[in-house]
Amino acid sequence: MGLVTCQISMSIDGFVAGPNQTFEEPLGERGEQLHEWVFPTEGWRKLQGMEGGERSTDSKLVEELFRNVGAYIMGRKMFGGGAGPWDETWTGWWGDDPPYHTPVFVLTHHPREPVVMKGGTTFNFVTEGIEAALAQARAAAGDMDVAIAGGASAVQQYLAAGLLDELHLHIVPMILGAGERLLENVGDPILEPVEVIASPAVTHVKYRVVGR
Amino acid sequence: MGLVTCQISMSIDGFVAGPNQTFEEPLGERGEQLHEWVFPTEGWRKLQGMEGGERSTDSKLVEELFRNVGAYIMGRKMFGGGAGPWDETWTGWWGDDPPYHTPVFVLTHHPREPVVMKGGTTFNFVTEGIEAALAQARAAAGDMDVAIAGGASAVQQYLAAGLLDELHLHIVPMILGAGERLLENVGDPILEPVEVIASPAVTHVKYRVVGR
Repeated sequence: MGLVTCQISMSIDGFVAGPNQTFEEPLGERGEQLHEWVFPTEGWRKLQGMEGGERSTDSKLVEELFRNVGAYIMGRKMFGGGAGPWDETWTGWWGDDPPYHTPVFVLTHHPREPVVMKGGTTFNFVTEGIEAALAQARAAAGDMDVAIAGGASAVQQYLAAGLLDELHLHIVPMILGAGERLLENVGDPILEPVEVIASPAVTHVKYRVVGR
Repeated sequence: MGLVTCQISMSIDGFVAGPNQTFEEPLGERGEQLHEWVFPTEGWRKLQGMEGGERSTDSKLVEELFRNVGAYIMGRKMFGGGAGPWDETWTGWWGDDPPYHTPVFVLTHHPREPVVMKGGTTFNFVTEGIEAALAQARAAAGDMDVAIAGGASAVQQYLAAGLLDELHLHIVPMILGAGERLLENVGDPILEPVEVIASPAVTHVKYRVVGR
C-alpha cells in the first residue's frame, strides 16, 4: 500500500493562499506567486505536454513529486465551481486535460456523477467524508501513493485525523500577511524532517508524520 | 560596518513563543521546546562555559551564529521584569553571566542606568526607539554584526522598518497552534534564501532581505 502524502507551497508566514479569493483569483491576492517556482521547470512543462523549460533542482523535484501518485483527493473549494449543488458545466480550473492524469476524488456535500477528462484524469465526487474518500482513492491508487492535493482545509482534516504520512512543504520566501493558513486546526502531530532540498527559489522540506 | 541580523527558532506554523506566557513560562506553553535543539550542542555548552555536548551540524551552526555578533538588541518583554517602571533588582532571565558576552541594548519606555554583568554582557536601556538603539548598537559592535535577539515584536519592528539585513530561521518541526507569531505586521519584504542547512532536528534557512 502506498503512502498518503501532501505537497504544497506555503509562504514563510504559513499561508497557502492569499486574501480575497475570487473566481478571477482563486488563490487570492498574490497567492499565485506561491507557485511561480513550478511553472518554468522542465518537469512541470512535461506534465503539461509542453517541451523545454529549466532543468534545475526544482525541476527534478517536480518530476519526483508526481511520479508515484496513483490518485488525488481535493476539497470542493479547490475543485471550484462555487458552493451548493453542482453546476454540471463546471469541470475544474484546469481545462480539458488536467495535470492529474489519475483518478481525483473531490470531497463534497453534493453528489455528482464522475467526470471523465482527457489524459487520464477522472473527477469522482465523494459525499461520505474524508475516510470514505481515502478508501476509494487507495483502491484506485493500488500500490502507489494517494496525494492530498489541497486546499488547506482538506490537508488539515487528513492531518488532524492522523491519516497523513508525509507533508512536503515548499517554503516560498514571501510574506503574504493574510489569507488561508495551512497549519491551523491540526492538533499536535509529531513531525520529523526527512529530506531538505534547497533551491535558489524555494526551500523544500519533507516531513514524515510520526505520531501525535 | 557589520550586518543587522536576527536568528530565531520558529515552529512550522510560524510561532516563536507558545500561548499563555507567564513569569514561570516566559516562552509560553511548549515554547521552550522550540529551543531544545540548541541545548545539547557542544557549541552552546561552550558559550555557557560548560564542557562536553554534541558535535553536530547544529553545534557548528550555533558557534557560527554567535561568532560575529558585536552587540545585541532586545525588546523589553524579552529582557523581562514586568511592564512599567523598572524593578532595579531585575537583571534579566540569564543569571550573573548571561550568554551574550557583548553590550545588549534593551528597547524600553522607561530609562534605567546600564547594568554590568559578568562575562562581558552589559545591559543598556534605550528609550529613544529602534533607530537610536541600532545606532548605539552599531557603535558598540564596530565592524561586527548587530543581532536582534528578539522577541517577535522587536524583530517585526526592524524588519518592517527595512533595517534588517538577514533573517536566519530555525524551523522546528512542531506545531504550536497558538502563541506569538514572528512574521506579522512586517509589510512585504523581499527575501532570498541564501543558505539552507538541514539537521535531523531543525531546518535552518538564512534569508537575505533584499528589498521591499
